[in-house]
Amino acid sequence: MTQPDFMAIAFEQAEKAAARGEVPVGAVIVGNGAVIAAGGNETRLRNDPTAHAEIVAIRSACEQLGQERLTGLDLYVTLEPCAMCAAAISFARMRRLYYGASDPKGGGVEHGGRFFTQPTCHHQPDIYSGLGETRSADLLRRFFAGKRDA
Amino acid sequence: MTQPDFMAIAFEQAEKAAARGEVPVGAVIVGNGAVIAAGGNETRLRNDPTAHAEIVAIRSACEQLGQERLTGLDLYVTLEPCAMCAAAISFARMRRLYYGASDPKGGGVEHGGRFFTQPTCHHQPDIYSGLGETRSADLLRRFFAGKRDA
Repeated sequence: MTQPDFMAIAFEQAEKAAARGEVPVGAVIVGNGAVIAAGGNETRLRNDPTAHAEIVAIRSACEQLGQERLTGLDLYVTLEPCAMCAAAISFARMRRLYYGASDPKGGGVEHGGRFFTQPTCHHQPDIYSGLGETRSADLLRRFFAGKRDA
Repeated sequence: MTQPDFMAIAFEQAEKAAARGEVPVGAVIVGNGAVIAAGGNETRLRNDPTAHAEIVAIRSACEQLGQERLTGLDLYVTLEPCAMCAAAISFARMRRLYYGASDPKGGGVEHGGRFFTQPTCHHQPDIYSGLGETRSADLLRRFFAGKRDA
C-alpha cells in the first residue's frame, strides 16, 4: 500500500466520525507497510475530551502491541494535530507524521505553540503535510456548514 | 476540605505512582468541595503514553459524569502540566488549574509553547501554581535519583 492508500483509510475514519456527529477527523497508524490501528474522533461517543482520532489510534496500537512506545511507526491523520495530539505523538516516539489540511484555528504543529519546535519536545517525527489537504478541508467545511444549517 | 487537602490527595496519587515505578505525578479533580476523581501517572501500567495523571483523572471524571466537559470543576496536579495535558484541560473546559512544581523540561503552561496563551487555545482555566512545589520537586528528584542508582 502507498501513502495515498493509508490516507484514504484515515478519510474513511473521518467520514465515519462525521456520520456519528463528531468533528470529522480520522487517523491510521502504519508499520512495515501494514495498518496497525485506525480511529476517528470519538469525543462525543466516549464522553472523553481526549478521544481525538490520533489519540484513539495511538491507544489502540499501544494496547495491541503491549507497549507505550510506537517507535518506527507512522501516523496518517486528515487534519493538522492539535497540541495535545502532537505531544502524544512525540511521547509515543513515532517515526513519521503525515497530515492533510492545516488547522489555523486549533493546530499545534505549524500553529499555536508549534510543539515539535519547542525545547520541551524530546522527540519529533519527520513531518509531511498537505496529503489530501483539499478533501480534508472540504469534509470539515461541509460538516460545520451542516451544523450551522441544522 | 481546603486547597492543601486536595493537593495532599494529589500527592498520595503521586506516591502511589512512584511505588509502581511510574514518574511520580498525581492529580485530583474537585467539584463543589468534593473529590470527583483522582489518578496518578499510569503510562507503564496501561501501556498508554497518554495516561498522564491529569488525563487519567479527566477521563475518570468524564466517565463518571457521562459528559465530555468538566465545566466548573478544578484540577489539582503535583507538577506543571505538559502540552498534552494543558490542551486536555482546556478541551474539558475546566475552571481552575492548581499545580505544584514548575517543569522546565517538559511543562507546557509556563514553558514550551505555553498552550493557554496561544490564539489556538479557546478556553483557559484560572491558574494557580506553587502549591506544594517543594514536595513535588523532591518527590521527582528522589525518583530519578533512585533510577540512576538502580
